[in-house]
Amino acid sequence: MSATSPGHGALDAIRIVLVEPKHSGNIGAVARAMKTMSLASLYLVRPFDHPSHEAVRRAVGAADTLEGAVVVDRVEDAIGDCRLVVGCTARARSYPHPVLDARECSRKLVRDVARGDQVAVLFGPERTGLSNRDLHLCNFELRIPTNTAFASLNLASAVQLVCYEIFVASQEGVATSAPEIFYPSQSDMEYFYQHLVETLDSRGFLHPEKREASTAKLRRLFGRARPEVGELKLLHSLVRLMRRDGG
Amino acid sequence: MSATSPGHGALDAIRIVLVEPKHSGNIGAVARAMKTMSLASLYLVRPFDHPSHEAVRRAVGAADTLEGAVVVDRVEDAIGDCRLVVGCTARARSYPHPVLDARECSRKLVRDVARGDQVAVLFGPERTGLSNRDLHLCNFELRIPTNTAFASLNLASAVQLVCYEIFVASQEGVATSAPEIFYPSQSDMEYFYQHLVETLDSRGFLHPEKREASTAKLRRLFGRARPEVGELKLLHSLVRLMRRDGG
Repeated sequence: MSATSPGHGALDAIRIVLVEPKHSGNIGAVARAMKTMSLASLYLVRPFDHPSHEAVRRAVGAADTLEGAVVVDRVEDAIGDCRLVVGCTARARSYPHPVLDARECSRKLVRDVARGDQVAVLFGPERTGLSNRDLHLCNFELRIPTNTAFASLNLASAVQLVCYEIFVASQEGVATSAPEIFYPSQSDMEYFYQHLVETLDSRGFLHPEKREASTAKLRRLFGRARPEVGELKLLHSLVRLMRRDGG
Repeated sequence: MSATSPGHGALDAIRIVLVEPKHSGNIGAVARAMKTMSLASLYLVRPFDHPSHEAVRRAVGAADTLEGAVVVDRVEDAIGDCRLVVGCTARARSYPHPVLDARECSRKLVRDVARGDQVAVLFGPERTGLSNRDLHLCNFELRIPTNTAFASLNLASAVQLVCYEIFVASQEGVATSAPEIFYPSQSDMEYFYQHLVETLDSRGFLHPEKREASTAKLRRLFGRARPEVGELKLLHSLVRLMRRDGG
């Protein structure tokens, strides 16, 4: 696998998604950070200020990566066709997702793109990080190990570290004799959650005040299981059994 | 070894030496990058503009690291008492030193400080990198793997990556306290599978000739999800919804 040819390498299937980046300089620094590590696919969800001169200035020699950035309105539009979505987070959550460290996670991402999948890594806004809502779209949390007393990584630094781990993983001579597994796309998973929640609603299973928490719990459980295409079909059948008219 | 206490950790014996940094903003960003990875010892050799407001601004919460920076006139004054000195370089030299990649080198640095040695990592000026003269003061070259077609790492990014590798190396073999997760026992899981299969049988869902394969498939899926105690309770509730008399 050639990971070093810029723009047309194996790592093009790994997209970096910035959710509501506030500082335009960071967008440019992210483009530069990506390119140093042979990544090229950048998505911006509701960027505060884009395009901008400041981003161009900070991108230095990565103007191509910056210009190729795809701007979308919703996170879902950036990841709909992705079969693995991970969210980069710093703080521990009260209700945590399964967490992989940057190195472990990067190896997983590289293995999956070697198989032909599209994958995405989400980064939240500078101050707040990813919202719980966005995290619920992810299969895993990616965590960068840091000083617990000062975990204040700059956005571009966080992207730099993740892209570095991805690049190093891609160079490790990844033994990719992984079995042929076909994963559903993120929008297929959304369709399943919708089917499940509507069915549970129709049975009065979800208490209004606990509705969101229960839905999040189910997403976390099935997201972690990461069903294959055939298993997702089976899960749909089980949900149909839950309907009053089901079976 | 505690690597997380800022300012007085084991990584204090690893100093970061910036030779003739041109942009004061980079000095601040370096201080921040160091502190996120529990490093505290910063030396500046002939900084172009220091101290500066711009450095303070970019240091964000790492003002202490920045204020603690030691300014010296000669590289030798920064590394005199060090027993291992490595120089970070990007380009290949005509007269190359022994080269270690960032990961390998970081493990070496951490091993040496564990033994009580002082060690240093040198970074050259933004445009030119370390001079041959400075490199000759080094035991090894440290090289950060990058896209060969675009190796233009920002100075602060390079420091960030090296400090990250040092931090991760310092944590290897350190038992991490995992969050308190309570998993059900194997017999609790068996009880769940029994509940599920009996329910599916009662709905005529499992074809006799595919019964075993389907059961194995479900076990594999839920086994992989590895539900926690609370999640298993939720799954039981879902199964109850599948019963003809369920709800």
